[in-house]
Formats: sequence, C-alpha cells, structure tokens
Amino acid sequence: MIKFTAQIDQFITSADVDQKIATAQALLPKIQSDPMAGWLDLPVNYDQDEFARIKSAAQTINQDSKYLVCIGIGGSYLGHKAIVEALKPTSPTKILYAGNSFSPIELNRTLAKLGDADFSINFISKSGTTTEAAIAFRIFKQKLIEKYGETEAYRRIYATTNSSTAALYDEAIANHYERFVVPDNLGDRYAMFAPTCLLPLAVAGVNIDEFIQGAVHEREVLLSTNGGDAAFYAAIRHCLYAKDFNIEILANFEPSFMYFNEWWKQLAGESEGKAGQGIFPAAVINTTDLHSMGQYIQDGRRNLFETIIHFAALPSDHQVPATNPNLDNLEYLQGKPLSWINQQALIATTAAHRAGGVPVLEIEIPDISAKSLGALTYFFQLSIAISGFLSDINPFDQPGVEAYKDNMFKLLGKPPSHNLS
Amino acid sequence: MIKFTAQIDQFITSADVDQKIATAQALLPKIQSDPMAGWLDLPVNYDQDEFARIKSAAQTINQDSKYLVCIGIGGSYLGHKAIVEALKPTSPTKILYAGNSFSPIELNRTLAKLGDADFSINFISKSGTTTEAAIAFRIFKQKLIEKYGETEAYRRIYATTNSSTAALYDEAIANHYERFVVPDNLGDRYAMFAPTCLLPLAVAGVNIDEFIQGAVHEREVLLSTNGGDAAFYAAIRHCLYAKDFNIEILANFEPSFMYFNEWWKQLAGESEGKAGQGIFPAAVINTTDLHSMGQYIQDGRRNLFETIIHFAALPSDHQVPATNPNLDNLEYLQGKPLSWINQQALIATTAAHRAGGVPVLEIEIPDISAKSLGALTYFFQLSIAISGFLSDINPFDQPGVEAYKDNMFKLLGKPPSHNLS
Repeated sequence: MIKFTAQIDQFITSADVDQKIATAQALLPKIQSDPMAGWLDLPVNYDQDEFARIKSAAQTINQDSKYLVCIGIGGSYLGHKAIVEALKPTSPTKILYAGNSFSPIELNRTLAKLGDADFSINFISKSGTTTEAAIAFRIFKQKLIEKYGETEAYRRIYATTNSSTAALYDEAIANHYERFVVPDNLGDRYAMFAPTCLLPLAVAGVNIDEFIQGAVHEREVLLSTNGGDAAFYAAIRHCLYAKDFNIEILANFEPSFMYFNEWWKQLAGESEGKAGQGIFPAAVINTTDLHSMGQYIQDGRRNLFETIIHFAALPSDHQVPATNPNLDNLEYLQGKPLSWINQQALIATTAAHRAGGVPVLEIEIPDISAKSLGALTYFFQLSIAISGFLSDINPFDQPGVEAYKDNMFKLLGKPPSHNLS
Repeated sequence: MIKFTAQIDQFITSADVDQKIATAQALLPKIQSDPMAGWLDLPVNYDQDEFARIKSAAQTINQDSKYLVCIGIGGSYLGHKAIVEALKPTSPTKILYAGNSFSPIELNRTLAKLGDADFSINFISKSGTTTEAAIAFRIFKQKLIEKYGETEAYRRIYATTNSSTAALYDEAIANHYERFVVPDNLGDRYAMFAPTCLLPLAVAGVNIDEFIQGAVHEREVLLSTNGGDAAFYAAIRHCLYAKDFNIEILANFEPSFMYFNEWWKQLAGESEGKAGQGIFPAAVINTTDLHSMGQYIQDGRRNLFETIIHFAALPSDHQVPATNPNLDNLEYLQGKPLSWINQQALIATTAAHRAGGVPVLEIEIPDISAKSLGALTYFFQLSIAISGFLSDINPFDQPGVEAYKDNMFKLLGKPPSHNLS
C-alpha cells in the first residue's frame, strides 16, 4: 500500500544500503520482543469490547455534544489531531484541544470558542498528573460541573488512561467516568491505534474500522517481508546519516498535513534524538514553503535530505477558470485541475532538489483516506522503531523530557513526594 | 524595547563575539545603502496618503465584508498572518488565506468556509503572475463577479502590487481596483511595514499606527547604537555557526506564535540559505513541543542552538482552580496564574537545555501588543540582514526559489515567452 522509493546512487552505494537492510532485518525479532512494542500487533490484537465501547461513546458524544474537548499533550494530542486535520470528515461534533501548553491566551481562546455550547471531555493521560493536561482538566471539569451538575458532568467525561495505577484511573473509578485503556506496552507516540487516538477519531467522524484495516494490511505486507520498505527506509536514513546528512525534511504538498508533519517530527525526534546523536527532523508544506524554506533546501548547507509524500489520488479537485482580462499569463493552465498542477510542482521540486544536491526519498500513498493514513502511520512507526534499533538506542523511551520537568517542579514549589510525572 | 541576552561563555569567547560585532557595525553603512534595504527606513518614511487610504479601505471592508480573502504566498502571506494570529484582535471581518498552495483540498475548504458570506479580496503579489496566487485570484474573482456583478466586484478587489510594471498593476488600472504599492526597494519577506501586511492587519483590527510606532522606536534604538542588540544577536549566531552549531531553533511559549515562527523561518532561511551555507532555521512552540522535539533538543546531536522568546507581561491570564477529588497532585498550584507557571516552565527549559549543552539565546519583549511586535519584527529584519552581510551573501535575493519553478513551468507546458515569474 505504501510505496517507498529512493534514487540516491550519487550519495550512497547500494552495497552499503543492502548491508544496512540485512542488519535491520536481523533486528526485527528483537524489536518484536521488546516490552514496549505492543503497538506492533495492536491492529490485529486489540480489545474488541473496548473498541465497540469507543464507537458507542462516539455516537453518544455526537448526539449530545457540539464539542469534544480533548485534553492531552505530546502523543496524547498529536496523533489524533494529525489524522483529523488531514481527513477533516463531517461530524456533528468538533474537536477542541486543551492542556497541550500552559498558555492562558490559548486557554481563553479555546474557552471563548466553546462558549455555552454542549460539550464533553476526553482526558487523555497515562498518569493523569501531566501538569499541562491536569490543569486544563481542572478548568474544563469545573466548567462542565457548573453547566450540568456533577452527575451529568461525570457522564460527559471520558478518561483514557493506564490500566490500573494512575491518578486518573483512581478518579475515573471514584466518579464513574467511562474509561478507556492506554496499553502498558506502548508509548504515547506509538499510540495511533490505541484508544488514545481512536476515541477522538471516531467522534470526529473518521471511520476507525478502515483506519485500522489500513494498518492491518500494511503490517502484513511489512512483517511478511522482513520489514520490507520500512526496513529499506530506515536503512537509507542510516546510510545518509553516516554521510553527515543529519537533517531530514518531511515534505507534504497538502496544507492539511501540517499536524501530520508535527506527529512525524515527534515520532522521529523523540525516538531517535538521544545520547548526542540522531537525525534532526524538520518538515515543510509545499508549495507554500517553497516560498520560504525552499531557498535553503535548494541552495543552503548540504547536510539535509528530504522525504516527499505524495498521493496517487485526491478526494476533491478544482479547475482553473477563465478570466478577463487575460493579463496573468495563465491561459495555458485554463481548465487544468489543481491536483494535476500540484503533482507537476511536486515532480519539479523533486528534480530541482536532486539537482541541488539533496538526497530525495519518496513515499507514495494511494489516496487521502482513513485506510491509507492507517497504513502510512503504521509504516512510519515501524520505520522509526527499526531506525532506533539500528542506532543501538531505545526508540521507546524519552529520558530527555524529564530535564525541564525536574527544573520546573523545583521552581513551581512542587512537594518532593509528588514526583510522579 | 527588545532585550537580547546570551550566556554562552562555555561555547564561544567574548573576544570572538566582540570582533564579530565590530565587523557587523562596520557593515551597517553598506546595508543602509543597499538598493533593497528600503525596509530599513520604511517605518519613518512611508507614503502618508497611502497609509490613510489603507485605513479607510479597512473601514470599508469592515463595513461590507465578513471575510477578506488574502491571496498571496511567501512574504505576501506569512508576515500579516504571523501578526494577526499572535494578536487575534476583534474585528467584524475575518481573514481567509488563499493562493499559498496548489492544493484543491485546501481551496475547497476555504470556499466552504466563505460560503455565501459577503467578502472582499486583497490580491498581494509584486507581479500578479505568481502561479499559486494568480490561480486563486481567478477563482475568487469569478466568485465575486457571480455574487455582485462586475462593477461591485471590482470595487471589492484591493490590489497590492508593484508601482508600475506588473500584470496585476495593469489589471488594477483596467478594472479600477483600489491599488496599494509594494515598494520596489524591498523584498516580500522584509515587507512587514509595507501595504503587503498593513492592509490585512488593519482589516483584522490590528492598530497599525502602534505597530509602526514599535518599529520606529526600535529602529531609533538600534541605528543610534550601531546596530545595537541586532548586531549582537547576528554576531553570536555567526560565532556559534563557526563552531558548527548549524541549526537554530526559535522557541516560543505561546501557541499563537506558530505563524510568527514560520515568518521567522522564511526570513532567516531565505535570506541566509545560500551558496551551500547558512544556519538551518527550525522552530518550536513550548511547552507543547517539549513533549515532542524536546527530547531531541535536550539530548540529541549537539549541533543546535536555541533562541527563546519571552514576554514580560501577557494580555490575559487564568488561575488554576480547586478540584475534587484531589488526585492529580496539583494542590500546590491551586490559585496560581497560568502565566506564572508558563514563565517557570520557560526558565526551567532554559536551564535544562543549557545544562544539556545547548547554547541558549534570549529575547525579551515587554508584552504581546501591536507595538511590541512591530519592534520585534524590525529587530529580526535588521538582525538577519546583518547576518547575511556577515556571511558575505546577499540576504535580499532568493535565487534558489527559481529552480523548482523552471522545472514546473516546463512540466505545465508554459509558453516560453511567459517566464516572468
């Protein structure tokens, strides 16, 4: 389903790539047996009853809420936002995001948008004590209680949390929130097929059956071929990094993929940026950013490579109309579909950047659908995991995230007994 | 107004910095006499009649339009969007953005948002033939004519373009569009104080007098001190780059600065990414991205430095409320303002990243207001210009942007006589 190609003979030898692929393939059993690799089999091995409860909760929310306030940060936020923004399906319920920063300005804007409309809350946090999210939960829970009274407010709170040991788990039990489980054997940034993402996706109108089906299919293709293109992509990234191409730019030609880019940056950066090493992940939206970062990519320091995503088909199109007077020199494009023009821009960019000394990798996806995005996210999760193992680092932890937290808790005056998150 | 500080003794010597500052100061007259440095004096030397016309056009648009469709790409788009998103003032007219990509999906979403509401168009293009923007103009102009008929439609089109030689200029004359001039002596990414940005800003409710006043004041401070902190910032960037810190991350702790970050990336990347050199500009929004890119910044490859922006005061705040049951370990934060918590997070991050081997530069701004953002953008424009001259490259051109266009025009079948943009 996901087609990966690379023409990079001028930068690395195929012998080097082949050797790296062999190493990657040999690492696969080790990845599969990692205690945090639960995401690998999740699409074929999930709690069916819980999945049915997610769908039914989404139906309830669609009936009783104009907004679902999704409270979460990092992987509890970026994954579902990436897919919702890319697909923007129709739904009676809009998603609002909260608890992903401390900004009072952002919070007040979200509260203003919410206004007096009916809403529910999905608090997504393994622990329930992540500071940004927990503060937002206090605020929106208070608003919910003021609006509906305690009983109805608690019915409108959906808690996505650890299976048993979290503060949010305890509160969900005490107040009878409907509860969904983030499996213990995966980290937030690998949680695309966990309730972490599935409930917001279902509420937003994404067909989560098809989303998972895409992952199931891609998993089958990749695992039956020893990692397949995911191992190939990981191997090439490593060969390029060894030649000092230490920045990777993910390039999408659809503005609605801005948050998909952000999700990918977290996946790559947080998995690999460790022990003084790792490819620096950056992203652009073209052709928009060809008029900003494009100059640098074409002509700046030659330490970057680019991974361009394209879609074989788009869900909607538009043609260039006639105009009068004809002063804009665009007669030759009259009647042409924008999708075709965008595709020519993509091909042109690929060639220009290659000629400018940028190794360009290409990922082709059939279309922009729940199924294809399920496949694409599974592909990236596996690629980045393989890549981490190739670097001999643990792609499933994030020790560096604690450093600012430790400092912050001191400054905030957090009591020493409360160092859970 | 803009306070720049840096504690980076462990990375570079003050002797090196002083020498680089001296070089920067000596370059100032050269910058001032550059034919494309019109932006330097623009805040004190603009067309007062045109400025009055901008305000009056904004009033008209506020009265007759629910939406202003701003058509433009690159610097004709990012500058005003950055300021509007950061300030989000109240206004009867919302800005919609078009013509900054070829995506039909994005276009159709914008058309759906526009619906049948009253609208006007601001087409912003030096030439009027930039392909992305010119296509969007055809589409929205057609819609305007269908809705209002030719005469009223043309009254609702505002053209911001070259003083005399552009296709858009010719069409504006032919159809009697109200016309504003992009000065010939500055490029789009240095157009913050030109009509390019001022008309959308005024329509969105930004006080453009105060915006310019901020720049006037900052200009006075910087030019009366031989470049002042702008030269200091440029010098430090160069010293760090010489030590192989070749990625700069602009860090904002306010989500509403996402497009400001994008504007800065264009300013830095397009000005400096040339001839196989240049600092790679990246950006984060914290604390959001401390839970994604934070791991890499703390612990990845040590070839990056960070420039953190903070505000001495915020326009709005919110306190952490009480909750029940008290299971989230947040009692110690009860009653505390979010602005204060966010500030502690910023201080904590600064210290953590420094301890992790990241040179951290700091820029302090009094508040989030039109005046302060006028000062900040002027500061960055001057800093990046100085930085380009320090590298002995021209920070005012963008030759690399042509490469993809040339390829694209061939693929699109553009007649050879039409190679204007």
